[in-house]
Amino acid sequence: MFWELAGVPAVAVRRGTRVESVHQVAACVCDPHGEIVLKVGTVETPVFLRSSAKPFIAAASVRAGVLERFGFGERELAVMCASHNGEPGHTELVASMLERIGARVEDLACGAHAPSYEPAAKALAARGEHPSALHNNCSGKHAGILALAKALGAPFEGYLEPTHPAQRAILALCERVSDDVFGEDKLGVDGCGIPVYATSLRNAARSFARLATLEGLDDEDARALARVTSAMTNEPWYVAGTGRFDTDLMRASAGRVVAKAGAEAVHCDALLDAGLGLAVKVIDGSRRAAAPATIALLDALRILEPEARAALEPHARLAVKNVAGALVGEIAALEDWIPAETAERR
Amino acid sequence: MFWELAGVPAVAVRRGTRVESVHQVAACVCDPHGEIVLKVGTVETPVFLRSSAKPFIAAASVRAGVLERFGFGERELAVMCASHNGEPGHTELVASMLERIGARVEDLACGAHAPSYEPAAKALAARGEHPSALHNNCSGKHAGILALAKALGAPFEGYLEPTHPAQRAILALCERVSDDVFGEDKLGVDGCGIPVYATSLRNAARSFARLATLEGLDDEDARALARVTSAMTNEPWYVAGTGRFDTDLMRASAGRVVAKAGAEAVHCDALLDAGLGLAVKVIDGSRRAAAPATIALLDALRILEPEARAALEPHARLAVKNVAGALVGEIAALEDWIPAETAERR
Repeated sequence: MFWELAGVPAVAVRRGTRVESVHQVAACVCDPHGEIVLKVGTVETPVFLRSSAKPFIAAASVRAGVLERFGFGERELAVMCASHNGEPGHTELVASMLERIGARVEDLACGAHAPSYEPAAKALAARGEHPSALHNNCSGKHAGILALAKALGAPFEGYLEPTHPAQRAILALCERVSDDVFGEDKLGVDGCGIPVYATSLRNAARSFARLATLEGLDDEDARALARVTSAMTNEPWYVAGTGRFDTDLMRASAGRVVAKAGAEAVHCDALLDAGLGLAVKVIDGSRRAAAPATIALLDALRILEPEARAALEPHARLAVKNVAGALVGEIAALEDWIPAETAERR
Repeated sequence: MFWELAGVPAVAVRRGTRVESVHQVAACVCDPHGEIVLKVGTVETPVFLRSSAKPFIAAASVRAGVLERFGFGERELAVMCASHNGEPGHTELVASMLERIGARVEDLACGAHAPSYEPAAKALAARGEHPSALHNNCSGKHAGILALAKALGAPFEGYLEPTHPAQRAILALCERVSDDVFGEDKLGVDGCGIPVYATSLRNAARSFARLATLEGLDDEDARALARVTSAMTNEPWYVAGTGRFDTDLMRASAGRVVAKAGAEAVHCDALLDAGLGLAVKVIDGSRRAAAPATIALLDALRILEPEARAALEPHARLAVKNVAGALVGEIAALEDWIPAETAERR
């Protein structure tokens, strides 16, 4: 088994005055034509996008008319794009969507896990309740796929299968935005059970550049992606939740960045003013390095206004505390890992 | 900030047929004189040993006579070396040690966290109880340090400080076994509040070779380390707990390997039959890669009998399951990352 995705040391975990651990990162910035503006490490090897693909998954439902059919607004569309915290506002919204679709919680095949947001998990446990599929961070996406199934006249049953009409519609849209073909060799099963596709960081960056610019898309895809961008940037709390990097980045940038994290430390962003897409992969899959690396790349591209950048500092430099709560270290990007010549190329 | 610890790609996270993430590893195998038998990546840069130092921390207490003074047997000594699961057997033993020392739970300065062993954490929550410092995986170590303080006639208060007589005795022993000097530049604060030292993988491997052979030590250190080895290998459940790699490795090897994991994916082993020490560091600090990498190194050194090796397969190849419980991937060592010439050198 050969590993072709190489990165560079980019984020360090410091304890006291010493580096304790280091994360390598690969990244690509593209325009909507796939022209590379900035590149770190290998950018041509397919990588599973995981939840970073959710904006495109949701777009397939939008294209099929689910917003009109079920009376979904921007909050519903935002939570369809979400890896949400499982806070009450998230789960209540998804429950109401299921009702409008005519689906039950039992129709969600994503499995149950405790809310990612610790206070929500503790409150649930304190009430003696068990987490349901609604608390799964992907429940909004699954509700969106059930809505898509209904819109396509397909059964809910089997909606996780790559051959189900809903998954076919989703994968077809994902292939169009990324200029890639997802044969069996590029498909896996995501943490929530749906098919997940691998595409290169370059193709992923191009997909997000298209989300930013709506260039190189047919009219229906373009209209669907425009609504996704509007929903995610207008309702960023529904895309992640309290204290989360994606929510804070979309808020701080006043909607000029569409941000979507994926498991195993993928992060993708549509940079609306620059008309570019950014795709980041922490090679070892450690989530803790994704935000510091992404912010360093946004810094190199001069994307954020000073005030926005200052607001994001808690995501750029993460405190390492011991069990008793004392500050003992920090997680932050290293210097000089983003090639200088690529900055000049712009 | 320059990072001098380089590794090689060693452990892959696979999803379906594709590699999703990769962990780099550095490692060193030494004899008690510090002669290198096998080396992967950089082995001269200081790395925080974290909990892998616990056998030596406990040895300082043994040397000061705490076993005799407080009537501690091998279980008590094993839990002094432990990063335990917080299972009832662990916490009850530590509670009884505190009683014998004349200390209270409130004297433990390690802080409280939920038991690492999920069934224990759930049982505690189901009883509506909050975790105490006894559940902290380091509580046995802290009890051992309180015992050491008492044996030295020093107060419990301030026992976390590097200048406290107990910490001085501990750091002095750690310096002797590793042939290193731990000035301020090599000290940090561990997750449980005590001073933690950074030493090279070579020095760490040498320390564990000395634990294996008792060579190059004064008589009192040798006697103390012999008792540590005996306690850890006779009572491996108290060193970690149910389902844990260290416990299973010591059991499977019938006590011919003394295994101790540390946070940020350090793993150190005393190889009793070979008379060698092994020190492993996953560069990115991901715990999930430590056991697959360690087992691959033990394989390269031909340390384990076939039956022992077979028993450890669940730690060598870790299942990746989705939320609903389906198998979707695997974490396992790559092939050919351990240099061939070092195997020949033996």
